[in-house]
Amino acid sequence: MAAGTAAGRNSAPRIDLNSDVGESFGNWRIGDDTAILGTVSSANIACGFHAGDPLTIQATARTAAENDVAIGAHIGYRDLAGFGRRHLECSYAELAADVRYQLGALQAMAGAAGARIRYVKPHGALYHSMIGHEVHSRAVIDTIASFGPELPVLLLPGSIALGHAAEAGLRGVAEAFADRNYNPDGTLVSRREPDAVLHETGQVVENMLRLAQDRQIIARDGTRVPVEAESICVHGDTAGAVEMAHAVRTALEEAGVEIRSFVA
Amino acid sequence: MAAGTAAGRNSAPRIDLNSDVGESFGNWRIGDDTAILGTVSSANIACGFHAGDPLTIQATARTAAENDVAIGAHIGYRDLAGFGRRHLECSYAELAADVRYQLGALQAMAGAAGARIRYVKPHGALYHSMIGHEVHSRAVIDTIASFGPELPVLLLPGSIALGHAAEAGLRGVAEAFADRNYNPDGTLVSRREPDAVLHETGQVVENMLRLAQDRQIIARDGTRVPVEAESICVHGDTAGAVEMAHAVRTALEEAGVEIRSFVA
Amino acid sequence: MAAGTAAGRNSAPRIDLNSDVGESFGNWRIGDDTAILGTVSSANIACGFHAGDPLTIQATARTAAENDVAIGAHIGYRDLAGFGRRHLECSYAELAADVRYQLGALQAMAGAAGARIRYVKPHGALYHSMIGHEVHSRAVIDTIASFGPELPVLLLPGSIALGHAAEAGLRGVAEAFADRNYNPDGTLVSRREPDAVLHETGQVVENMLRLAQDRQIIARDGTRVPVEAESICVHGDTAGAVEMAHAVRTALEEAGVEIRSFVA
Amino acid sequence: MAAGTAAGRNSAPRIDLNSDVGESFGNWRIGDDTAILGTVSSANIACGFHAGDPLTIQATARTAAENDVAIGAHIGYRDLAGFGRRHLECSYAELAADVRYQLGALQAMAGAAGARIRYVKPHGALYHSMIGHEVHSRAVIDTIASFGPELPVLLLPGSIALGHAAEAGLRGVAEAFADRNYNPDGTLVSRREPDAVLHETGQVVENMLRLAQDRQIIARDGTRVPVEAESICVHGDTAGAVEMAHAVRTALEEAGVEIRSFVA
Repeated sequence: MAAGTAAGRNSAPRIDLNSDVGESFGNWRIGDDTAILGTVSSANIACGFHAGDPLTIQATARTAAENDVAIGAHIGYRDLAGFGRRHLECSYAELAADVRYQLGALQAMAGAAGARIRYVKPHGALYHSMIGHEVHSRAVIDTIASFGPELPVLLLPGSIALGHAAEAGLRGVAEAFADRNYNPDGTLVSRREPDAVLHETGQVVENMLRLAQDRQIIARDGTRVPVEAESICVHGDTAGAVEMAHAVRTALEEAGVEIRSFVA
Repeated sequence: MAAGTAAGRNSAPRIDLNSDVGESFGNWRIGDDTAILGTVSSANIACGFHAGDPLTIQATARTAAENDVAIGAHIGYRDLAGFGRRHLECSYAELAADVRYQLGALQAMAGAAGARIRYVKPHGALYHSMIGHEVHSRAVIDTIASFGPELPVLLLPGSIALGHAAEAGLRGVAEAFADRNYNPDGTLVSRREPDAVLHETGQVVENMLRLAQDRQIIARDGTRVPVEAESICVHGDTAGAVEMAHAVRTALEEAGVEIRSFVA
Repeated sequence: MAAGTAAGRNSAPRIDLNSDVGESFGNWRIGDDTAILGTVSSANIACGFHAGDPLTIQATARTAAENDVAIGAHIGYRDLAGFGRRHLECSYAELAADVRYQLGALQAMAGAAGARIRYVKPHGALYHSMIGHEVHSRAVIDTIASFGPELPVLLLPGSIALGHAAEAGLRGVAEAFADRNYNPDGTLVSRREPDAVLHETGQVVENMLRLAQDRQIIARDGTRVPVEAESICVHGDTAGAVEMAHAVRTALEEAGVEIRSFVA
Repeated sequence: MAAGTAAGRNSAPRIDLNSDVGESFGNWRIGDDTAILGTVSSANIACGFHAGDPLTIQATARTAAENDVAIGAHIGYRDLAGFGRRHLECSYAELAADVRYQLGALQAMAGAAGARIRYVKPHGALYHSMIGHEVHSRAVIDTIASFGPELPVLLLPGSIALGHAAEAGLRGVAEAFADRNYNPDGTLVSRREPDAVLHETGQVVENMLRLAQDRQIIARDGTRVPVEAESICVHGDTAGAVEMAHAVRTALEEAGVEIRSFVA
């Protein structure tokens, strides 16, 4: 039945798994990209502004293409020292040009692998700006609409950018977080709280099964709350994270949930 | 007659004028891009690695497109502090990825202006590496051949990259320098010599007329030497440079030489 | 009489003139530092994070020392692309370390000129953060207090950092802006308003004479408002700005106001 | 007896152990600095140009000071993307200013920990330039002599910088590499050769015991060759490297060799 699917567009339950990759920079390595690209269906590839040198980006795009993983542009603020995690109060015009530059750079790398950018996901502080920063949300959405109107944008449920995307004729895609705890109203528990992050694989797996099968999440107080998400964000930056991502995938597949990119 | 043309592909003498643009960075301004883009037929637009922030690049690409000036990718070493003028001994793989990244970024900016990259010109120290650095020449040529095999490459006569381009099926285009003095063997007088640069507009104009009409340059010793060049590089980074470029164009046009990009 | 002095610490009227210098970066030039360093008594030298490459900083420190101009550390956010004019929401610890790094780097450059840092002035968006950003103000003030408790800090009147400085045992120094218009309450007219900036040299000179002699400014509505300032900020980034700065200095000296750094 | 010591300045055999630390950058972590700083006697701390953000540098300087480890300035080319491992053909003036800037920045960080820079070690490609690049060697040595004439410089035996240092009145200190294989002439086996790096802890320990006690190294062909070195460079960038460093230290101490910085 349609109500039992995550994407709600066909009869079998399906969900996407996405993860951040390509975040190494020169001699600095982050994450086991090869392992995580064997697990997820969508790859948020850094574009060089918050992380990712060109050689890393190119190699990551190739591995993603070889694994039939959809390539997403993980665009960020221009801040290598801060890994894109610090809000940078740039202008609409600056941000729009920075986003377009990153999209073009990644497109060339995807092209070298015989692939193309399939979607966009803002990173770090820019992702958070999509929640409520009118100017930055408009700059990101308008630029994507101009660069590639066919590209969906991966966002946090409730982001104003989801509305801006709809206005611009872009497809907004909401995601859930595998290892984050939720409030009874469906929002994420703040990272300032001690129980913001889930560490038990069993709990994470159970939660993601509920999401994929029933479109529900078990909140921190045990209640079940509806969460609309076409994708689940998993991490790959530590060995434990890769294992957890793999466990989530295995459990979903065993439960009959198809792992497929939201752009497939 | 064909022998009287620079390009040697049609009966009327024609030549291209190219100039470096888009080299501002954030609050730092260089060059009067708007003025020079009203004078030249080909624009070497910085791609962000030696100069050019995304907003500058985007605006420059738009102005070039509006002036029907061919957009060239002015690729460089990753060295903003050195303006790409210092040799950086990176690896083949690093340089190839850096070049592809820059090409992709500029392509997106050209695309926003309804245009495309039409050719490539290595900048500064990278331009000099094309003369004799086997590894870097191969990295640049191979990457262009992969990214856009239809893109000509603008180079100094005698560069080994001209041979590599030919091998790779790329069109190599030799250029002359309007304000540089030449040795009797057709090579440039070294910048270490006091008469390396020509400062008199009359001399520059006369020299470029000889080049466009007779494929000859008047060397420092007064002899005429044959120089094969389909393009003339002029500067736009000072008010005097823009005036000189304009004088060259006017004199060429008055002499019946058509100013047209080598890609047109 | 004391009421007639700006600094209020001796009987003859005196005032400091400060200006931003050392803001060139590699091949990009900004400002006529040599000219402005012949005019002002205090030099805000960029420290490399928002502007200023090491060679520029070193040369500027030397010229300042040769002109007996006090060397100030013009510290900024780590954002070359934005020239330090964009707020960067870094943490207390990050900002404190960034500030200390810049102070140390400039100290070495001043030392090479036989001089030392004499004061600190936050630049651009960081200057604005000193007005009301509790965490960033504390990070800046605490770091200066630790690095050099003898160093005054140049700030906008009303900044919370003036209070933090007092708490930390640092001397806060308020400054006025030569070419800015003031509201009747002594605050600056917002740059969003058409009359924010004064362009007539005569008006600027008259205003600064009032400030130095009577501690008053003529506000946009013509009323005279008291403004406490030990220093006047003048610009040197254009030929016109240098001329205006020179006119202010000449008029002040002719009126018997001594131009002397607030640290002298 | 003096012949049995490495430093040759007192009767008991002693040697220094040095290692690269502070090479993390923002979110990118490299090395277990805390572990290695419990093992070595001298810490080559990155200064921000090839690696090391200010917060990392500051924390590393503090840990070094707490462990009574001598703080060395690990100066490098301005090339974060290349980790300072690529030769950058900058000018004497540029390099000299870049070095001074780094020394000043680290001095401030050491000062915050109640310590000071005790020596200098060029990093990566700059270290290699000290072997035979006349201009870069002079720029580094002259700048150190001006900034801190009391600071020794750690170098590869045979470097021309050792001669330049002597001319400038600086103390040059030669070092050996714990995990590198040597040719019978006392030079390092090139990294292009398969046996360039030693992987067996036993072999490394045996070799370093010979060095500290007999001033000899067992070359790749089994012969013993004299090597003058006051310091041994060990790595700390992997768990295995830290273990090997610890094993070297333990073996040396058990053999009665004192581990002490060459500046102590």
